[in-house]
Amino acid sequence: MSAVHNPIADYRSYPRVADLLEFARHPDLLELRWSDDRLSPFHHQWLRDNCPCAECVYSVTREQLLEIVDVAADIAPLAVAIAADGYLDIDWQGGHRSRYHPGWLRAHAYDDDSRAERLAQQRSRRLWQAEMNQQLPVFDYPTLMHDDQALLQWLLALRDLGISQVTGMPTAVNSLQGIARRIAFIRESNFGVLFNVQSKADADSNAYTAFNLPLHTDLPTRELQPGLQFLHCLVNDARGGASVFVDGFAVAEALRREAPEDFRSLCELPIEFRNKDRRSDYRCLAPLIALDALGNVSEIRIANFLRGPFDAPAQRMSELYRAYRHFIGLTRQPRFQLVRRLEAGQMWCFDNRRTLHARREFDPASGARHFQGCYIDRDELLSRIRVLQR
Amino acid sequence: MSAVHNPIADYRSYPRVADLLEFARHPDLLELRWSDDRLSPFHHQWLRDNCPCAECVYSVTREQLLEIVDVAADIAPLAVAIAADGYLDIDWQGGHRSRYHPGWLRAHAYDDDSRAERLAQQRSRRLWQAEMNQQLPVFDYPTLMHDDQALLQWLLALRDLGISQVTGMPTAVNSLQGIARRIAFIRESNFGVLFNVQSKADADSNAYTAFNLPLHTDLPTRELQPGLQFLHCLVNDARGGASVFVDGFAVAEALRREAPEDFRSLCELPIEFRNKDRRSDYRCLAPLIALDALGNVSEIRIANFLRGPFDAPAQRMSELYRAYRHFIGLTRQPRFQLVRRLEAGQMWCFDNRRTLHARREFDPASGARHFQGCYIDRDELLSRIRVLQR
Repeated sequence: MSAVHNPIADYRSYPRVADLLEFARHPDLLELRWSDDRLSPFHHQWLRDNCPCAECVYSVTREQLLEIVDVAADIAPLAVAIAADGYLDIDWQGGHRSRYHPGWLRAHAYDDDSRAERLAQQRSRRLWQAEMNQQLPVFDYPTLMHDDQALLQWLLALRDLGISQVTGMPTAVNSLQGIARRIAFIRESNFGVLFNVQSKADADSNAYTAFNLPLHTDLPTRELQPGLQFLHCLVNDARGGASVFVDGFAVAEALRREAPEDFRSLCELPIEFRNKDRRSDYRCLAPLIALDALGNVSEIRIANFLRGPFDAPAQRMSELYRAYRHFIGLTRQPRFQLVRRLEAGQMWCFDNRRTLHARREFDPASGARHFQGCYIDRDELLSRIRVLQR
Repeated sequence: MSAVHNPIADYRSYPRVADLLEFARHPDLLELRWSDDRLSPFHHQWLRDNCPCAECVYSVTREQLLEIVDVAADIAPLAVAIAADGYLDIDWQGGHRSRYHPGWLRAHAYDDDSRAERLAQQRSRRLWQAEMNQQLPVFDYPTLMHDDQALLQWLLALRDLGISQVTGMPTAVNSLQGIARRIAFIRESNFGVLFNVQSKADADSNAYTAFNLPLHTDLPTRELQPGLQFLHCLVNDARGGASVFVDGFAVAEALRREAPEDFRSLCELPIEFRNKDRRSDYRCLAPLIALDALGNVSEIRIANFLRGPFDAPAQRMSELYRAYRHFIGLTRQPRFQLVRRLEAGQMWCFDNRRTLHARREFDPASGARHFQGCYIDRDELLSRIRVLQR
């Protein structure tokens, strides 16, 4: 049952969770039986398509050279065998030979049980409410900077909870870059690679004022909202300005339970978000709640101060306002809120497509306040997690 | 009928295409009648929500301060009037006063005719096939670098056709940056800010070999594929290596006509794309054809060399192979293909989410070949177009 590395197709290893016992031949597929009695059909085309030999896959890049469209659609094996080393061996019509590692085959089997098993393994999200005030995961900057296992734990918290704090950070300008780059390159925006959150006379966003900033996601005006947001506190001597966070997925699920028709409206009726200044004019039309193919909430998009006028069919306008008011009403309930003031040397890092954040009004005359922020996308977070888990 | 700039809510101007003639009061809305007889309902909440006064919108950022959830859901006007200057004036219960410019109101009216009109204005896409070999839009580098109107024409070609060539470029390394930044900042990836397309012994993608690279989009392994791709030729002294382009939207529409069931399969059955090397492991599960809310093809995602094993329900596996083979078979037909060899000082720029590109095999022993590339997202393209059109 030792893990065997597949030298060609991938960088992962595929433990032999079961052995191949026998196979049955059908007109367009092989049905394999495993030692735990699972039955897995594999279509001939699928098997030929996934031949891992050095002729079909370039071993340096581990990328496929074969194009299945160059193989006859009715290709079938001449001979099939389960070899003494447990591999599935196929001699194809036309002369090609393929060998499949049983761990790799099992990991990619597409019978119903195998697919359900993989899906279950992907479910790692945990919703949260105000108990997060006592349970906030806090990570130590110096440790994250040199310890890959600590880094992995931080990234898993970001993936599964969507909220975290880092303490012990330097308070020098731009020191945020170092820790962000422990994950990946930074996603630039029209606000820069790093953005400076300060009250400015010539603000190009309400974020750069001292106003109360209601619960929102950043850059809902872009087709892809940034995945991770970092907010690093360099100075916070001003009165007010506490941070508020809400798990937007928890709010959406509460809405789905309380008022399924409001939930549906926010999934169906797109809203335009606008981010306009003298040099740029970003617009994005998308619903407030996005669902994945399985009906799970996959994204929240909200920022009242960046919202354009609603543009729904007239007969659905009242419905849209009712649903929008309901959602925002929920986000304002203390039962959902994490509230904390950030001090110099601390940093928030959160899932910007899930966790809404707000800043309470502060008094810029009472002292300096300077945060720096940046973004990294979800793709980079997940890639880093996969590499750390290899 | 002069255009009047709205000083608060936006940077666009809103011509008075019609005057307000009269209004009818209903329990939850006003119905306005225009001088061209169009009837536009505006709900009370919508009007209160979109009050452009300096109390409701911060004039420096032009972002909203008012949150509609803080206003009663049944708010109604005390008094309504069409003023001598053509504005709609409302005195609200509770004392607030709102004034609406008729051009702005008309531009945001949501009666069926107004919505259909706006939708029609957005349709600017033109599909193409092999006639593009004679009609390829070519732009001159020095002109693009200093002439904003020429720049706008280039960007409109990219938006509407998704293909273009630029000539007269310098052949110095990194000179691509200057012209890309005429549009916006560059989107970084794990391959860098600029990537170098050369045959490399330690290639981390088949793109960096001399192999035939079949028709594909770049980075289908990311949730958001890059919007624009630039490929700048510095040296091309090697034999072979012609570029091939296909309008993926034209191919998808041909598939929809020829075999609607294959089209539907490629919209419904997601495919995993994988981009894995020693330092990163990107994966994305998405269908080959994406549709927008209106059923129009909005994106193609394809790269056979980055595709993972198909993971569909067993009873749909044959259907997926049939549809995938059909799509790729179409992309290989000469009737869809633009074929051209790029020479030093020339650059391709195309919509990476629409226009598939391929490179034919070249002989690295026959001479040097060095391209540089980069990406810019669709959001930045559209923002730049809007600002240039102001």
